[in-house]
Amino acid sequence: MAISMYKASVPPLIRCLNNLSGILEKGAAHAENKGIDPSVLIHSRLFPDMLPLAKQVQIASDVARKGAARLAGIEAPSIEDNEASFPELITRSSTTVDYLNTFTPDQIDGTEDKIISLPIRGEIYKFPGLPYLLTFVKPNVYFHVTTAYNILRHSGVELGKFDYLGKPEH
Amino acid sequence: MAISMYKASVPPLIRCLNNLSGILEKGAAHAENKGIDPSVLIHSRLFPDMLPLAKQVQIASDVARKGAARLAGIEAPSIEDNEASFPELITRSSTTVDYLNTFTPDQIDGTEDKIISLPIRGEIYKFPGLPYLLTFVKPNVYFHVTTAYNILRHSGVELGKFDYLGKPEH
Repeated sequence: MAISMYKASVPPLIRCLNNLSGILEKGAAHAENKGIDPSVLIHSRLFPDMLPLAKQVQIASDVARKGAARLAGIEAPSIEDNEASFPELITRSSTTVDYLNTFTPDQIDGTEDKIISLPIRGEIYKFPGLPYLLTFVKPNVYFHVTTAYNILRHSGVELGKFDYLGKPEH
Repeated sequence: MAISMYKASVPPLIRCLNNLSGILEKGAAHAENKGIDPSVLIHSRLFPDMLPLAKQVQIASDVARKGAARLAGIEAPSIEDNEASFPELITRSSTTVDYLNTFTPDQIDGTEDKIISLPIRGEIYKFPGLPYLLTFVKPNVYFHVTTAYNILRHSGVELGKFDYLGKPEH
């Protein structure tokens, strides 16, 4: 089973977002058990000019959704950034997984050299598909899921590395 | 240029660790400019039972070094975890990059099904090379580099997403 653009993108992104849903469920349970208003956690940040938890989830979803779509050459559905509760953020994550599950290998395999145009802060960046996936999409999704984990850990939610990685098979 | 186990592992890990070195340089400069004892930053954590900055760098180095070595079927050199300054942590990161640069595609390509035995918390986990790389090595390295970034951000170091991702080419 040779590695391919599909295998390196869709299944690991699905796994990462499923783990994010589990992390958010632990955040929701923590708020309930401790009598904390969940919106306090949802608006928490690690520093005043960093983005809050809700935005970390929304960006992870956006980068994953648009990443797969751009490689496949289709337009990702846009989602309004209006989640205001843990259940809504978990739905954002699980809806993204449902969307990623619609992709088939033949839509994404062979896109290593396909030129992807990406607007970042007002500039258009052009990447071939391989560096787009490996130096932009995946590090970015892992960044925002890790930061969501770190915001909740910093707020006292009991999480461990396996919540982020998923349990290894053996 | 088809994706391969080498392309999906060594170059993105090198890029990530080079970015980590840059992040640590900004941490060192911040400490100097603000008259902060650098060891305060090096021992900072996001929560009392999370690991401090130095350990995040050491683990990122270990996972990347051992990840490439296990795929190639060789033993990674072990490195003592004794870094106590920003220059030493930057050297830990850059030495890891130097080590990763010694791998050639023919050592790592074709290892998708190679069984990797991995001790985790007293248990031996066995993964084929493909899920080992995609569900363990890479998410783990990104986790620890993001957490290093988040610890420094939380301490007031001015960092932006491009410090973590590296500047995109276009």
